[in-house]
Amino acid sequence: MEIFWFSGSSYAWRVLLALELKKIRYTSRLLEASKGEHKTPELLALNPRGKVPILRDGDIALGESLAIIAYLDRTTPEPPLFGRSAAETGQIWRAILDSLYYLEPAINRIVGPIFFGGADEKADDIRAAAKEVHAELQTVERTLRTRSWLATATISAADIALYPFIELLLRAAGKDAAQSLDLGFLPLVETYPALASWQEQIRALPGYERTYPPHWRTSTAYAGSHSPAPVA
Amino acid sequence: MEIFWFSGSSYAWRVLLALELKKIRYTSRLLEASKGEHKTPELLALNPRGKVPILRDGDIALGESLAIIAYLDRTTPEPPLFGRSAAETGQIWRAILDSLYYLEPAINRIVGPIFFGGADEKADDIRAAAKEVHAELQTVERTLRTRSWLATATISAADIALYPFIELLLRAAGKDAAQSLDLGFLPLVETYPALASWQEQIRALPGYERTYPPHWRTSTAYAGSHSPAPVA
Repeated sequence: MEIFWFSGSSYAWRVLLALELKKIRYTSRLLEASKGEHKTPELLALNPRGKVPILRDGDIALGESLAIIAYLDRTTPEPPLFGRSAAETGQIWRAILDSLYYLEPAINRIVGPIFFGGADEKADDIRAAAKEVHAELQTVERTLRTRSWLATATISAADIALYPFIELLLRAAGKDAAQSLDLGFLPLVETYPALASWQEQIRALPGYERTYPPHWRTSTAYAGSHSPAPVA
Repeated sequence: MEIFWFSGSSYAWRVLLALELKKIRYTSRLLEASKGEHKTPELLALNPRGKVPILRDGDIALGESLAIIAYLDRTTPEPPLFGRSAAETGQIWRAILDSLYYLEPAINRIVGPIFFGGADEKADDIRAAAKEVHAELQTVERTLRTRSWLATATISAADIALYPFIELLLRAAGKDAAQSLDLGFLPLVETYPALASWQEQIRALPGYERTYPPHWRTSTAYAGSHSPAPVA
């Protein structure tokens, strides 16, 4: 299998985590978004929307991170990422859709202006989005106080779907452009301690290091959620 | 099983279609949104977000239409709504996510102001959203020219996830408030003939009549996509 991705894409990161969890051998095709490598004729043939991640497996080319993870769960059923029972399957998809509809859009409203400019002009909307994110994270925190993983007793697609967005949020919260906004996410270990423990569990997964966005390493001094990152 | 729903909710309609397709016996709990029946303590205990659809099956209460359909696919595997192979599963989720991310938000921007007021003030945004919807429907139309169903050779969750949004869009397009906007969706049989055939296939499914929004019947003269509906 080949996976086409960008460094730092939350959607791609999910798929890399799924590949590692299932111990699937894959070829990493890291693309440079700034060079338009996802808009070449070859890549557009694989995904006409010109987006990553894209999985290629023989004749099959598939876009959309959750579709790819559902595919991988059929090709390589162990460990199951969508549960071992109907009840677990329902809970996992419910948690994924809660992230998708409520958390991701709000996180995107925060991180977009912080990373790409306009945080001052959009300060009011960023603060409104942060309020929504806090409301969602409080629910997540309550859940993670009662069990180790988001939807079931073991790690599932719900955890790996959410995780990259949490990392993205924390990275944005540590940027210079975020300091005057007082978003209230850092340090995570103090604001959401159960979420911080969950984050550490995921970071300890075998193969995790291969999924970490390469360009985040070359940024100065971002060593995790506890220390703000001074540069992009 | 019990299903709690509103008449006309696209999300609830999907679940009713899944229940009928799988020939599951269920108790219909039709709620009146205008009376706040979804915000009672009993209903908020089942879904703290105060939204429908909600499925109750013994001790299990589940919200989010796609999570419910994934659950039903495990309790009652035949006919499978998420495919019989990994490739089909991937294609079905890809089609569902294409609808979710690209078509549903654009359709909601059109139907909201037309049903609930503000269509004149929001005319520019409605026209912009209609352009996005047409782009997506052109892709759907091309697919449906080559096969009978959206993602695979048989009906799948992709078809029942999309279908209620198409009905909602066509209903909005037929309203008085939409006439001056010239949205270009009606009559469907002329604008998107393959989509119109697909619509007829779904309307011919056993049990379809039980899923049709009751209050749509009592509106005057909406007999389908070919004739505009004069009232709400």
